Amino acid sequence: MDLLSIKDPAFLKALSIRELEELSEDIRKFLIEKNSVTGGHIGPNLGVVELTVALHKVFDSPKDKLLWDVGHQSYVHKILTGRAGEFDTIRQYKGLCGFPNRDESEHDVWETGHSSTSLSAAMGMVVARDLKKTGEYIVPIIGDGALTGGMALEALNHIGHEQKDMIVVLNDNEMSIAPNVGALHNVLGRLRTAGKYNWVKDELEYLLKKIPAVGGKLAATAERVKDSLKYLLVSGVFFEELGFTYLGPVDGHNYENLLENLQYAKKTKGPVLLHVITKKGKGYKPAELDTVGTWHGTGPYKIETGDFVKPKVVAPSWSSLVSETVRKLAREDERIVAITPAMPIGSKLEGFQSEFPERMYDVGIAEQHAATMAAGLAIHNMKPFFAIYSTFLQRAYDQVVHDICRQNLNVFIGIDRAGLVGADGETHQGVFDIAFLRHIPNIVLMMPKDENEGQHLVNTALKYNDGPIALRYPRGNGLGVKMDEELKEIPIGTWEVLKEGRDAVILTFGTTIGMSLAAAEQLAKQGVSVRVVNARFLKPLDEKMLTEIFAENIPVLTVEEAVLQGGFGSSVIEFAHDQHMYNLKIDRMGIPDRFIEHGSVSQLLEEIGLTKDHIVDRILTIIPKHEKKAFGS
Amino acid sequence: MDLLSIKDPAFLKALSIRELEELSEDIRKFLIEKNSVTGGHIGPNLGVVELTVALHKVFDSPKDKLLWDVGHQSYVHKILTGRAGEFDTIRQYKGLCGFPNRDESEHDVWETGHSSTSLSAAMGMVVARDLKKTGEYIVPIIGDGALTGGMALEALNHIGHEQKDMIVVLNDNEMSIAPNVGALHNVLGRLRTAGKYNWVKDELEYLLKKIPAVGGKLAATAERVKDSLKYLLVSGVFFEELGFTYLGPVDGHNYENLLENLQYAKKTKGPVLLHVITKKGKGYKPAELDTVGTWHGTGPYKIETGDFVKPKVVAPSWSSLVSETVRKLAREDERIVAITPAMPIGSKLEGFQSEFPERMYDVGIAEQHAATMAAGLAIHNMKPFFAIYSTFLQRAYDQVVHDICRQNLNVFIGIDRAGLVGADGETHQGVFDIAFLRHIPNIVLMMPKDENEGQHLVNTALKYNDGPIALRYPRGNGLGVKMDEELKEIPIGTWEVLKEGRDAVILTFGTTIGMSLAAAEQLAKQGVSVRVVNARFLKPLDEKMLTEIFAENIPVLTVEEAVLQGGFGSSVIEFAHDQHMYNLKIDRMGIPDRFIEHGSVSQLLEEIGLTKDHIVDRILTIIPKHEKKAFGS
Repeated sequence: MDLLSIKDPAFLKALSIRELEELSEDIRKFLIEKNSVTGGHIGPNLGVVELTVALHKVFDSPKDKLLWDVGHQSYVHKILTGRAGEFDTIRQYKGLCGFPNRDESEHDVWETGHSSTSLSAAMGMVVARDLKKTGEYIVPIIGDGALTGGMALEALNHIGHEQKDMIVVLNDNEMSIAPNVGALHNVLGRLRTAGKYNWVKDELEYLLKKIPAVGGKLAATAERVKDSLKYLLVSGVFFEELGFTYLGPVDGHNYENLLENLQYAKKTKGPVLLHVITKKGKGYKPAELDTVGTWHGTGPYKIETGDFVKPKVVAPSWSSLVSETVRKLAREDERIVAITPAMPIGSKLEGFQSEFPERMYDVGIAEQHAATMAAGLAIHNMKPFFAIYSTFLQRAYDQVVHDICRQNLNVFIGIDRAGLVGADGETHQGVFDIAFLRHIPNIVLMMPKDENEGQHLVNTALKYNDGPIALRYPRGNGLGVKMDEELKEIPIGTWEVLKEGRDAVILTFGTTIGMSLAAAEQLAKQGVSVRVVNARFLKPLDEKMLTEIFAENIPVLTVEEAVLQGGFGSSVIEFAHDQHMYNLKIDRMGIPDRFIEHGSVSQLLEEIGLTKDHIVDRILTIIPKHEKKAFGS
Repeated sequence: MDLLSIKDPAFLKALSIRELEELSEDIRKFLIEKNSVTGGHIGPNLGVVELTVALHKVFDSPKDKLLWDVGHQSYVHKILTGRAGEFDTIRQYKGLCGFPNRDESEHDVWETGHSSTSLSAAMGMVVARDLKKTGEYIVPIIGDGALTGGMALEALNHIGHEQKDMIVVLNDNEMSIAPNVGALHNVLGRLRTAGKYNWVKDELEYLLKKIPAVGGKLAATAERVKDSLKYLLVSGVFFEELGFTYLGPVDGHNYENLLENLQYAKKTKGPVLLHVITKKGKGYKPAELDTVGTWHGTGPYKIETGDFVKPKVVAPSWSSLVSETVRKLAREDERIVAITPAMPIGSKLEGFQSEFPERMYDVGIAEQHAATMAAGLAIHNMKPFFAIYSTFLQRAYDQVVHDICRQNLNVFIGIDRAGLVGADGETHQGVFDIAFLRHIPNIVLMMPKDENEGQHLVNTALKYNDGPIALRYPRGNGLGVKMDEELKEIPIGTWEVLKEGRDAVILTFGTTIGMSLAAAEQLAKQGVSVRVVNARFLKPLDEKMLTEIFAENIPVLTVEEAVLQGGFGSSVIEFAHDQHMYNLKIDRMGIPDRFIEHGSVSQLLEEIGLTKDHIVDRILTIIPKHEKKAFGS
């Protein structure tokens, strides 16, 4: 059918299973085509085509609430709720969001991006529903990976306790982003194969009937045995123990099976867990054959071959640079151990993993556990490298404060995807980390100007023995600079003058160094001489250099791709005032006090006014009025 | 025996069970006496006397590692490791810490305060041990309440998966701080009573033997049934499912039982969960009879009667003021729902709970779930009041960012115990919240000057419909001011001049208002006229008033009982620079960049230089040189 004609999911009610299957094929074809151009989370979405269609056939969205945990698997939901026409713009500036978005549709009832939030949100909605007596169905859909996140487990525990009506759909694709980790995964594995034990149950029931009854006591026992068999052999004892009615496992690509179980779930009182087995990438061979997560989220690709259309790359990715430098150092220092919360591929730790399998721990989606496990390693004199995306480090804030920094332990935190990340948008921008880390005592916080300095700072971090140290690095690739053969240590708290100048000073670091140098160059042509400083240590500041700059009493501009409130620039003006240097012009540029949507990083920087031209303008406003010299004069 | 003579736990090896029992009595007597004077976590410690003695008899600390989750139950451990002589100073300034502390003893191998960290830390230590092949035992001791914290569940999942040797001691006292919540609690309850099902197992085995064998198939079936019985009836299927060897339940006050099982655990490969049943307050009747948590942590008490020696109180506690105002408003607004993560008593929500049982949710030690559940309620147009201690809100930072503030939901966060908390020390000081909240877009952050303004700000928060709003309030009691009958709304972002003055302005809020007014008064006697402003909105700032103050160009001093880095004062100087007001003297006083230990709040304030006298001195340094007028001249 013409997917562009869909306005809302009501049309599904009238469709036969045969028609649903045809629709599924159309959706798959559409997704494969659109995503081959735009990129996106193709694997997860191909896996939930039938599940999403079945949910919208059985439930009445938006009255009934479908909550997509993590949210990158909501493309089919977006098609069925009238947004197929916008798929050419998905994840692009001002285009369709790659995650549920309440501004887009009344069918998007819960916004996500980070994992494991849907059960808690659903619990809030269930309480609201029961107080207001509105009676709608509330249906969180959560993956087996997201289920291992601590907050999801907290929610399971509470939901099981409260016994209110909720239908939890467990979308079990045997792989979250990377192959799954954890004991819970083994539980799910046993459930998946439970079908084959049905014969045991039948046989036992037969045997029990043959035993002569010897009074009520034995009858009760027999009943209990049947219960135990139910629990152990056919059903989800783990979830039943927690208070859920367990249904499944259900073939997530079989409509009869899906619809029957969803209908049954609707009729069941109390919390239900419907265990649905799906296959990531279903219906597109290259994605189906993926065993490591390559097709979880992709850029553009050639449909026929599954080859990725890769942009020309001049340098290795930042993730790779950092992880490979750690790997090199791990050859000399046996104490180095790498920890990732479910991101071995994103963090480019495959090389480390294959060389040091016993020194690499993928702990699953468990950021809190990962941080404190790193603390436990450090307290026993190991050198943990905790690799985590900036936005996900938010979830381990307390562990960084209470366990790592308070005990002043030698944990090296690799803060990947620091700064704007682009297409993933609001939920994933790594812009808060400076503000949520720099007020924690004992931590050292750094960001390199290029990948050569990056490798030296990794070396600095792993040689450092005075407490926690963190290195921020952006999403994407390095600049392609020449790499030193020998690794150096860079003295803690030292900045570097990249360009001399006497009319103003720009203090900046990481990704905004390039635009700052370009601005300085342009200003030079206008006769304005601007110094540019690589402020590679965000904490501690280079107090010596700062004091010297302040003594010159020339205007200072701080430039950062991070939130302004409580950020790096804020720490510079704090320091000035603490030194009783009150008469300084210090101006700040950075990310304003609002959440930043999806789009390319350059579009977003333009939108928030963080570009070379904006820097030029700002410098001109803060320097004393000067005679602009004509170019060449 | 003379507990003061204990140097280390080695002496336990030679003691008979009879002697251990006598020692236990001595320890109980000691604890009850000492704590009756100093106060402390008496209930939890009386519950673990035998467990702690048994652990130190079976294991060789400090070679073997005992990790006390939460840590407030480590008093017995402190006695056995040579610290009995310091118990008169426990939780006091420069005295014995109420939690494990690595500076105190080599037997304290992991510092805690926040719950649920021990399993993750132990996992790090286990990995370190196995890489270094040192072979020691690693033994986290975790309560049944702490086990429901998300990070502990993350750790269980990972530990079960890795299958490395670790002995987890589950100290199950059927009550964490408040009575336990959650499905996991029910699982534990079933395990506790599992003993009585033994007859079922025996009977079934007899029956199975009677059935004639019909080939290998049936024999296999019978074997499986026996397995299933083991799982279901006698043992901890939940933990077994996760990959642990489950031992127990064990009577935690019976040495034979404890020692036998600990020895067995030592011989077991892979992760072991030893389920120990203890009774909080064991051996002291008033504490034993406690069913709600009154004896979890106490001030001084009379040993004979169990009556608390209460200090004279002039006003209700802040927790009570806030929760009771919420309760009052809940009578008019049906949408108000209260959520607490295991602190119904600490947050004084008993009254709300008894009046609105269906609108009050104690979700257990589950801060992340609590925050996002509040978001789920708000998205369905309810008015959640999320009551949480400042230090524990750290654990929900990501949920506040990603779920509450990003979606701009009407959640009212009651930030209790904001500022220095005193005796609980480093792990519990509520000094980071302004710095970790003020950079989050959309949030409003407030602190009242007294309990009358407090009730108005609670009203303001619950009438506010434009997004998240948080109210900080300190530990302890109000000032005893007159309370208005009628609740008012205070316009968002408005400050209040408490005292006029023209030579300098103090911007302050909450607990530091008193000392600021006193300083101003003293300065007035010296002829210095100081304005004092109640900056009750920390975000947004009162930009109008600030601009007017800046226009006067008089020195400004910000005073806050919170970290200086990225704090309130920082936001004031940010604003000045953003307004291009560069020539202002703005000075800041607050908490320096280090962790603050235990002690009375007044001692700690003196130590960090946050007192009336320090404010006077600071004002005198920033105002232009002036002629000091003699008093009365």
